[in-house]
Amino acid sequence: MHNMNLDFLFHPRSIAIAGASATENKFNAGLKFLEGLLAFGYRGKIYPISPGGGEVMGLKIYKNIKDIPGQVDYIISAIPAQYTPQLVADASCKGVKAIHFFTSGFSEIESQEGEKLQKEIIKLTRRSGIRIIGPNCLGIYCPAGGMTFNPDISKQSGPVGMISQSGGNAAHCIHEANSRGIYFSKVISMGNGADLNESDLLEYLIDDPDTKIITAYIEGVREGPRFLKALKTAARVKPVIIFKVGNSEVGAEAAASHTTAMAGSSRIWEGLLKQVGAIQVNSIEEMVDVTAALLHMPAPAGKNAAVIGIGGGASVIAADEFIHAGLELPRLSLKVRQGLLGIQGSEAGRIFKNPVDVNNFEGPEKFLLTVKAIEACDNVDFLVIQVAYDHFGLISASDKEFLTSVYIYSIVQLKDKVDKPIAIILHSFSSHATRKLAEESYNKLSEAGFTVFLSIPRAAVALSKYIDYCKWLKSHRTGTNKKAIK
Amino acid sequence: MHNMNLDFLFHPRSIAIAGASATENKFNAGLKFLEGLLAFGYRGKIYPISPGGGEVMGLKIYKNIKDIPGQVDYIISAIPAQYTPQLVADASCKGVKAIHFFTSGFSEIESQEGEKLQKEIIKLTRRSGIRIIGPNCLGIYCPAGGMTFNPDISKQSGPVGMISQSGGNAAHCIHEANSRGIYFSKVISMGNGADLNESDLLEYLIDDPDTKIITAYIEGVREGPRFLKALKTAARVKPVIIFKVGNSEVGAEAAASHTTAMAGSSRIWEGLLKQVGAIQVNSIEEMVDVTAALLHMPAPAGKNAAVIGIGGGASVIAADEFIHAGLELPRLSLKVRQGLLGIQGSEAGRIFKNPVDVNNFEGPEKFLLTVKAIEACDNVDFLVIQVAYDHFGLISASDKEFLTSVYIYSIVQLKDKVDKPIAIILHSFSSHATRKLAEESYNKLSEAGFTVFLSIPRAAVALSKYIDYCKWLKSHRTGTNKKAIK
Repeated sequence: MHNMNLDFLFHPRSIAIAGASATENKFNAGLKFLEGLLAFGYRGKIYPISPGGGEVMGLKIYKNIKDIPGQVDYIISAIPAQYTPQLVADASCKGVKAIHFFTSGFSEIESQEGEKLQKEIIKLTRRSGIRIIGPNCLGIYCPAGGMTFNPDISKQSGPVGMISQSGGNAAHCIHEANSRGIYFSKVISMGNGADLNESDLLEYLIDDPDTKIITAYIEGVREGPRFLKALKTAARVKPVIIFKVGNSEVGAEAAASHTTAMAGSSRIWEGLLKQVGAIQVNSIEEMVDVTAALLHMPAPAGKNAAVIGIGGGASVIAADEFIHAGLELPRLSLKVRQGLLGIQGSEAGRIFKNPVDVNNFEGPEKFLLTVKAIEACDNVDFLVIQVAYDHFGLISASDKEFLTSVYIYSIVQLKDKVDKPIAIILHSFSSHATRKLAEESYNKLSEAGFTVFLSIPRAAVALSKYIDYCKWLKSHRTGTNKKAIK
Repeated sequence: MHNMNLDFLFHPRSIAIAGASATENKFNAGLKFLEGLLAFGYRGKIYPISPGGGEVMGLKIYKNIKDIPGQVDYIISAIPAQYTPQLVADASCKGVKAIHFFTSGFSEIESQEGEKLQKEIIKLTRRSGIRIIGPNCLGIYCPAGGMTFNPDISKQSGPVGMISQSGGNAAHCIHEANSRGIYFSKVISMGNGADLNESDLLEYLIDDPDTKIITAYIEGVREGPRFLKALKTAARVKPVIIFKVGNSEVGAEAAASHTTAMAGSSRIWEGLLKQVGAIQVNSIEEMVDVTAALLHMPAPAGKNAAVIGIGGGASVIAADEFIHAGLELPRLSLKVRQGLLGIQGSEAGRIFKNPVDVNNFEGPEKFLLTVKAIEACDNVDFLVIQVAYDHFGLISASDKEFLTSVYIYSIVQLKDKVDKPIAIILHSFSSHATRKLAEESYNKLSEAGFTVFLSIPRAAVALSKYIDYCKWLKSHRTGTNKKAIK
């Protein structure tokens, strides 16, 4: 199979924005796109188009795309739906390669008029070879091409590609990932997918050298067998993470009204995704969590975790959540437990089972010895260190700050001294009091190269899925996909 | 049944802290308790005790409790376990009413020595009538009595009582609740429960007039039938929320090592809690979420929700999560949908099904009309308004700030204009970019008296459990428990 090359979508040399005027008195989407591209440093030419003409943000507004002197590669349409056929007709004369319709009011609405309009613009663009993104979507984010739909997301490129049938969820995912130090190659918010659909985009990302991990928010697919075939190919080449929604009847109906997608039974989806080796997640947050593991955590040999932390209550919760997520917490051998007693000095307030509760934090040397002793267990595949701010019950905020900084320093010191894979959980992240401390800790740990999760249950679920994937990969190994994970 | 009056635990007139010295070179728990009580403004006498004597924080250190001139009501023990029998013997001579053993190293450890020591101190206190909290716990937090184990938690009293078999989880719950504007009457971190156990404390809270809602973190119980009977009585008098852990085999073993609790089968617990009308939750966060609903949300007549918000993707996720949690999203009548079309002007970019996506936010008047139109549906029991920061894909941070403030203002304006119960979801709370905005919004909404949840799935689960409870309550109504919920 030779997949379509869609590079032209991500690196246009010029963009016309239909509907961008200087009007600020009500929400002006065209202006927002213009502001976004300028703030993002898009390096090609930008041509605002609006019937009133004039000037906006230092740029001349053209009354019609046909008046633009130079070549126009790409159009962002932010005009009302009823004017789009004329826009397409005009664009055909200018040799435009692609139009992104932010414009909504097509087949996703209940009125017959929308369906009719969508058919009309598809017919017009087919004739002229123009490809369509959308309608009813945010379009393209590609830092390398200077393209964005939002001025505040990162200009940094990264290895993650995303196909999203919701612009809002794409934006949410990018914000969430950016704040975790995860960046994107290309994100396509594709809306109704009237022309380029999820299969086209997935096939493209398979071959895209900038994309090492493919993620997708899917409400439903238009060409089931083709999508499945592409998924199968994709999963053998790079990790593929799918967040499939519209699983309830009501959800499916909402999806249909949102982007016309046909949802399909959730049980069928679950089976198919498992079969092809795609990783199924149940939220945007989980998508980011699994991506974080894929990017930074070496593959554990199996599901046997040893959890180490401070706090008996947190240890009990971790045990429940890890087991619930399908991980194992093997019993530590008597020898190891005696070793831990020797290192820690006393059993009081501590637990030398798995999870291990070291109770009090007594510096990096002792912590390294403790972790090495646990690592030495043959039946342990990987280590999880939990840092629970709000579980330090007795101490004040300033003590907490000091102890946490020593704890985080000690964890960072483990790097390169421990062979088995390590993951970190920073929990109680949501309390106002410890938010700043949590953010600083997060940054230090992730700069040191650790995968850091934000709660015990989120860590348990993401680790379990990551390890299932590693296991699947071992039995379906090809030359290329091994590179994608550590 | 006449339950034991334990008021003396929460309002001692004098506290001796065994182990509080000026030593700062290693972690000094006695000193931490002292600092906590002073910072909290405890108004009784405080007597530090340490064999070295001297002075700490302006207070004379007594070498032995017997040297203290005045009456001692309450002792906090932060000395090593082997010295505790002597402390109890000395305390017996002073007419002490209760000792809280922060000290660990008793029956929760594997060494026989711990079990033996625990039996010894129990025998000694039984003889003298001293009651024990713990050992191996943080003890008591009671703002009205000036008692705390942490200097940073709120001095404000509130309606929530908590029994916790983990000090860390109690501290976490208090921080989490405080940051949501929820305050406590009494929290008891009870550790091993060697003397006063979960049944004693539960029976006490049933009769405690300051406690309107009982919450408990339970690893296991010592007297099953008695606890069950107390639970049954409790649930008929006030709402009872139970977070039962140790549900996996490993979790149960961790619980035994933590506080000697016998966990019991999770299926049995689930059945029993349901039967007695207690609300079972699966995390500290969920405990706080359900408490927030109990405190501020009028009881919905049933499980039929109407969800209103901005964002198609967020609407689809909400549909899936609400249905998954056992809520219903009834179809809106044609008349209502036509009414919404009339109010909103156009269908483009909007969804007039349930969830309703109003796409763009156009001021308080239009929003009130929209919400009133949806409220008018006979088959809708309650309304949920979702505010999704990071789903506003196209706009910059400053635009987002402006639009959100208008949106929040408009929600606040609904108060007293809408009869059906309303809950709010502020999601995408975790992103750095929108954290400040989210916190401000949270405060405005909760000051206006709304119940605010922090994510779609958390809202769905908490609302479903809250409504199940309201339904149970209707069929088991007594004079007293009706008052506890709105």
